[in-house]
Amino acid sequence: MVLEQFKVQETDLIRIREEDLRRTVAEIFKKMGLSTHDSDQGADVLVMADLRGVESHGVSNTLRSYVKDYENGSLNPATGYQLLRETPGTAVIDAERRLGIVVGAQAMALAIEKAAQVGVGVVTVRNSGHLGAVGYYTMMAAKKNMVGVCFGCSGMPTPSVVPTFASSPMFGTNPISIAAPARKEAPFLFDIATSAISGNKVRLAVRLQTPLLPGWVADQKGQPLAEETLVFDRNQFSLLPLGGTREHGSHKGYGLAMMTEILAAILSGSIPIMLDNLSGAKGHFAAYDISAFTDIEAFKDQMDQMLEHLRSAPPAEGHERVLYPGLLEHEEEGQRRINGIPLHREVIDWFDSITKELGIDPLRVLS
Amino acid sequence: MVLEQFKVQETDLIRIREEDLRRTVAEIFKKMGLSTHDSDQGADVLVMADLRGVESHGVSNTLRSYVKDYENGSLNPATGYQLLRETPGTAVIDAERRLGIVVGAQAMALAIEKAAQVGVGVVTVRNSGHLGAVGYYTMMAAKKNMVGVCFGCSGMPTPSVVPTFASSPMFGTNPISIAAPARKEAPFLFDIATSAISGNKVRLAVRLQTPLLPGWVADQKGQPLAEETLVFDRNQFSLLPLGGTREHGSHKGYGLAMMTEILAAILSGSIPIMLDNLSGAKGHFAAYDISAFTDIEAFKDQMDQMLEHLRSAPPAEGHERVLYPGLLEHEEEGQRRINGIPLHREVIDWFDSITKELGIDPLRVLS
Repeated sequence: MVLEQFKVQETDLIRIREEDLRRTVAEIFKKMGLSTHDSDQGADVLVMADLRGVESHGVSNTLRSYVKDYENGSLNPATGYQLLRETPGTAVIDAERRLGIVVGAQAMALAIEKAAQVGVGVVTVRNSGHLGAVGYYTMMAAKKNMVGVCFGCSGMPTPSVVPTFASSPMFGTNPISIAAPARKEAPFLFDIATSAISGNKVRLAVRLQTPLLPGWVADQKGQPLAEETLVFDRNQFSLLPLGGTREHGSHKGYGLAMMTEILAAILSGSIPIMLDNLSGAKGHFAAYDISAFTDIEAFKDQMDQMLEHLRSAPPAEGHERVLYPGLLEHEEEGQRRINGIPLHREVIDWFDSITKELGIDPLRVLS
Repeated sequence: MVLEQFKVQETDLIRIREEDLRRTVAEIFKKMGLSTHDSDQGADVLVMADLRGVESHGVSNTLRSYVKDYENGSLNPATGYQLLRETPGTAVIDAERRLGIVVGAQAMALAIEKAAQVGVGVVTVRNSGHLGAVGYYTMMAAKKNMVGVCFGCSGMPTPSVVPTFASSPMFGTNPISIAAPARKEAPFLFDIATSAISGNKVRLAVRLQTPLLPGWVADQKGQPLAEETLVFDRNQFSLLPLGGTREHGSHKGYGLAMMTEILAAILSGSIPIMLDNLSGAKGHFAAYDISAFTDIEAFKDQMDQMLEHLRSAPPAEGHERVLYPGLLEHEEEGQRRINGIPLHREVIDWFDSITKELGIDPLRVLS
């Protein structure tokens, strides 16, 4: 139950045109010392998340901490990256503490280049800043008639996800994403945390005073909450892996988190967060050139048929329709390109003060 | 609660030495018309599953149906396969209705060969018979100092897993596996169905009259069972995706099932089971050459440290220890190599009759 007074009021939301948000965010990155290209790239990753309604990874939740980390020197604004190893199909990149939303896009671009040459390309990245919404990178591949796959390891210094049967957290929310192109249907874009729920959801439940469901979190001794529980402190709880409890398959979510550690952290020559919580974010970026496997048009036909079949399938009682990954976000993107991106008044206040502080034009608002 | 009379009695189990089981299974395959090499390969996949305690994919549950399908002509015993496309890093194979446990191993071997050349290799397979335990293929890569990844689409003619919000099943249990080598620790071997539970678990619950938990299955209208329920007919229920209900993340399990359809079925030029339930099994076999990414010894050190860290972590109350994927199976394999593989008396009876029918030596038993 959401208490009325905690709901975000429509009057607290202010709409911003996509291009206005993009320009101001890029200007902020430039003031942090990034090149024009890197600034535009970083802005694109954030604005795409906001366009798609993925606010947790848009400007509201992330940009402030990026600015802080550039200002305190923990993020590196210089252009480029260090190439550690390379073969025709693979590469390993040391991001040297550059922001992940800049280096990640370069890593996927390199994977796409390699896939165009040898059918498949895989680039791993270590020692990176925040990767943002990893679905951005897999969509880069989908736009080039490839299938994109990404595994990410959180660079947060505090692990949040507790392994099955363990008493304390050892993983980040380690996301997995895959994107593939269709023709008439929305592109397939799957982008999940391997935890049962996100950390944001716990914060929201605290703020809105809605109960957490069993199977979502564990207490400080690793015991999954067995009943609906009202919580008051985000830090009292660890996230459970997808599945929740062992009976419901948490060992599968736990294994997916480890899959991500192996493919992104260890395969980039880095260290899992459970062994070194200052090792930064890591990523695994893969592109599969569809034409190496089958005809591109046949691939898109099959995708359309599968997605249309799911979208038009009779729903179970109580549900309006069957969705597929990326459909709602695609619809939201269409709306927000027309009506603007809603940001909370408090976020606009932050933009006002940071643009003033940095001496750049204020963020233009629609309403 | 398991009723005493339904438990498998130790007296119903007969132990077989690994090499005896391997020899008899290979002899049966030879009588089906397979080459010596293919027969040994097929026997190895099945016996490895039994050695590791993965009975659902061992000789007891599968060999009978393989024999039936060779005898009725729906499986192709001829050696080889059809190579449809090839690049330095990729290949696509038409299995031409050969058994997946034979062609799958050849597909991973080809992926390993390609990874040794260009850092990563990906081979997709379509039109195949049953793939067996897909962890077998990923372990092939791990034994060659590579990371192995496999996605499989069930070839069963009837889908068993219902998408989130849908009313009827559209996917098989679509497994995902990854294996990676360690040095002192057991190799990491993760091999899961993307459904909340396996179909076998429902059959077992029917047989043992133990209740199904909420979040495991849906009724024939797609509604997840909301309470513990005693069931009497396996066919009355569909499996839910990993996560169970939308609140607990079933859209993630559903998306993982689609990931598998895209990477294995559509990327091999084939058709998802929801659109053609006679399109056979499909597989996606990937190998990552560790030396292309980092030093092999450093990789194994990191794996050992991560696995040891998890294995020795303080468990939550009520649990003996923290496990990692592959640990229990590795320990079981050690035991069974010494003590033999336990098979149910009824399976031994089947071996007695099939070896007699085919005119080969009877299966030698230990006790």
